[in-house]
Amino acid sequence: MDFNPSRSFAENLDSRDPLASYRARFVITDPGLVYLDGNSLGRLTHTSLDRVQHVAEQEWGTDLIRGWNENWWEAPIRVGEKIARLVGAAPGQVIACDTVSVNLFKLASAALTLRPTRTRIVTDVLNFPSDLYILQGLVGQHTILRIGSPDCDVTPDLDELAAAIDDSTALLTLSHVTFKSGYLYDMTALTEMAHHHGALVIWDLSHSAGAVPVELDACNADFAIGCTYKYLNGGPGAPAFLYIRKELQEQVVSPICGWWGQNAPFAFGLDYIPAPGVTRFLTGSQPILSLLAMEAALDPLLEAGLYRLRAKSLLLGEYLIYLSDTLLSPLGFRLGSPRTPERRGSHISLHHPEGYRINQALIEEMNVLPDFREPDNLRLGLTPLYTSFSEVWEGVDRIRQAVAEKRFEKYPTQRLTVT
Amino acid sequence: MDFNPSRSFAENLDSRDPLASYRARFVITDPGLVYLDGNSLGRLTHTSLDRVQHVAEQEWGTDLIRGWNENWWEAPIRVGEKIARLVGAAPGQVIACDTVSVNLFKLASAALTLRPTRTRIVTDVLNFPSDLYILQGLVGQHTILRIGSPDCDVTPDLDELAAAIDDSTALLTLSHVTFKSGYLYDMTALTEMAHHHGALVIWDLSHSAGAVPVELDACNADFAIGCTYKYLNGGPGAPAFLYIRKELQEQVVSPICGWWGQNAPFAFGLDYIPAPGVTRFLTGSQPILSLLAMEAALDPLLEAGLYRLRAKSLLLGEYLIYLSDTLLSPLGFRLGSPRTPERRGSHISLHHPEGYRINQALIEEMNVLPDFREPDNLRLGLTPLYTSFSEVWEGVDRIRQAVAEKRFEKYPTQRLTVT
Repeated sequence: MDFNPSRSFAENLDSRDPLASYRARFVITDPGLVYLDGNSLGRLTHTSLDRVQHVAEQEWGTDLIRGWNENWWEAPIRVGEKIARLVGAAPGQVIACDTVSVNLFKLASAALTLRPTRTRIVTDVLNFPSDLYILQGLVGQHTILRIGSPDCDVTPDLDELAAAIDDSTALLTLSHVTFKSGYLYDMTALTEMAHHHGALVIWDLSHSAGAVPVELDACNADFAIGCTYKYLNGGPGAPAFLYIRKELQEQVVSPICGWWGQNAPFAFGLDYIPAPGVTRFLTGSQPILSLLAMEAALDPLLEAGLYRLRAKSLLLGEYLIYLSDTLLSPLGFRLGSPRTPERRGSHISLHHPEGYRINQALIEEMNVLPDFREPDNLRLGLTPLYTSFSEVWEGVDRIRQAVAEKRFEKYPTQRLTVT
Repeated sequence: MDFNPSRSFAENLDSRDPLASYRARFVITDPGLVYLDGNSLGRLTHTSLDRVQHVAEQEWGTDLIRGWNENWWEAPIRVGEKIARLVGAAPGQVIACDTVSVNLFKLASAALTLRPTRTRIVTDVLNFPSDLYILQGLVGQHTILRIGSPDCDVTPDLDELAAAIDDSTALLTLSHVTFKSGYLYDMTALTEMAHHHGALVIWDLSHSAGAVPVELDACNADFAIGCTYKYLNGGPGAPAFLYIRKELQEQVVSPICGWWGQNAPFAFGLDYIPAPGVTRFLTGSQPILSLLAMEAALDPLLEAGLYRLRAKSLLLGEYLIYLSDTLLSPLGFRLGSPRTPERRGSHISLHHPEGYRINQALIEEMNVLPDFREPDNLRLGLTPLYTSFSEVWEGVDRIRQAVAEKRFEKYPTQRLTVT
């Protein structure tokens, strides 16, 4: 599309946006706020707000223990099935529970038992560090091969990755969309590459679920995990999810054998017998207020449909890159995301030597909430359900002002207190 | 105390109850309901209801990502410190996170690394089955010695337990108050017994925290876990907690190395370096709605004080046993809890051959919510903050009616669908 940098052009894009009406599904108390951090914490839907009030007051307050039978006990499975529809999974393969870290621990540990003679785990430096830490914690006799250099953080070296996967590889695990640059892996190709060598794959969907169409079944993925508080708008720290391909489910057990994963949890037998299917990867009681608030947030996503969301996300991204090239590059900004749309998730990274101070100025006096990552990285999240083209225009314009008017200079420079 | 079985006696006890006013701190929408299941799900406090609405609408809806800096990121530590005051722990030893099962997995796994040459884990059949499952899942080369017989479920065989702990024992782990009979272990004596043989101890406080004074530091306990949705009134599936004695903290790392337990989580370094202290046992983002609702529920407990709560709990228990002996024993009920007050937590088990159908009648037509456990066990939870003596009297009277008037006979007999 031929963009132009005027505000009226943004307004024109909004007027032709088939998803524009979805913004009204969200609680927006400050219309002047430019919120570009949905890649970290999604906005609150009216449905979630209503639901959490109902769960607290009616289900907990009045139904009390009866809530477990009526609504809560099955929630990890019921919510898992809703998420399944957003990540291309047939029923019976997704559950909502625990945190991303705990779920990766469970799945990686189980996956390694399926390849007992193989010694290598392959991942890369673009992966979310917490995923790397989890692997380091369970690695035992295995070697972790971490492809790439931290200095090259926009796109992975796919040749090096391909070379690393061999017949000693038990497991490949990657962030489907990387947290810094928003690089989007070709899930089909990478999964095939691993399978070609007999390795299994765990995909972390934290930065793709809800923003990028994911087709776990069609890609023949083995395992997946993901959080729900970014593009799924599930709320702060809402429970994560995990996926196990149908054919693998009876071959694996969770290392964390909780009673929710027991075959007959209310028989209170003394020996662990795993439940059939993916539910054997449940552990204990899930946080119901957070879980059901998250469940309610999935409805607008399911209504809008992932392919329509992706179309808008791509247009938002193209537009933001255009505005950045036109208005921000002259001020010292450098794009830190792939330019190829099909290799990009739904956030755009912009580097600037003064990124840390610019971020402070944006938050403190420009009413913009971006996301900042060390050392100089402004991440701008584009959430197609509620981010408007005018909001993108306004955000870029305020970033421009913050730099052109040197507003950032009054803020302290970054202190490297990290060890 | 010399009880008598009249309703007016119960009212008299209520009129002299120094904690009677705390009942008004809870949302009670049906004053006719006899709720004796606080040992499974505590009631909703007004403070929690207000808090969850504020967290959803203001902190998530309006503050958005800023909530993490303002209030949420430190919550597992802040809430842990509040719980610490209820379980006799000095600051810096308790965090609120994850589920009981995940926390037991982390602590048991870590504890075993401290006794690498020892091969035995000792527990008993009175322990909550999920705890046994967790041990089975991580046992590796260890042997689990499970003391006792499932048929003797009121009190443990302490001599057998003592005989089982020897110099090959790495770990003793028990439910401080057992889930069936409510038996309360002598934490000091058992911990000493384990330490005498060089073994470590993990206490599960799920059925004692908030109802029984717990003195983890004074007992020299090594590790503890517990849930917050029973006597702590934290809400359905609210995050659990864990305790690690100060001196042990730097000697152990969590097997689940998430970024919340990393030394500098926002540096996003590629290698896991555990944070100092107990926070190294955090994993990933915690469910904030559930966590902060739980935090708010702790205030009335802290105000009332555990020793006052225990005094009322004991009186409630004595009174219920008296009423049961007087009014229910003639109808075929048998006490399934210890008679000795100092060996009893805050729920009373009553067995009856028709327990399953009686439970149905109580729920369906008597407006009583007890708790039922296979095969014949009515568990009656006494929560000193909101259970009144009149409620106990009313509960026993309705149980009596359900049996004397044979109201239970219209309900189906128990189906043993468990495998």
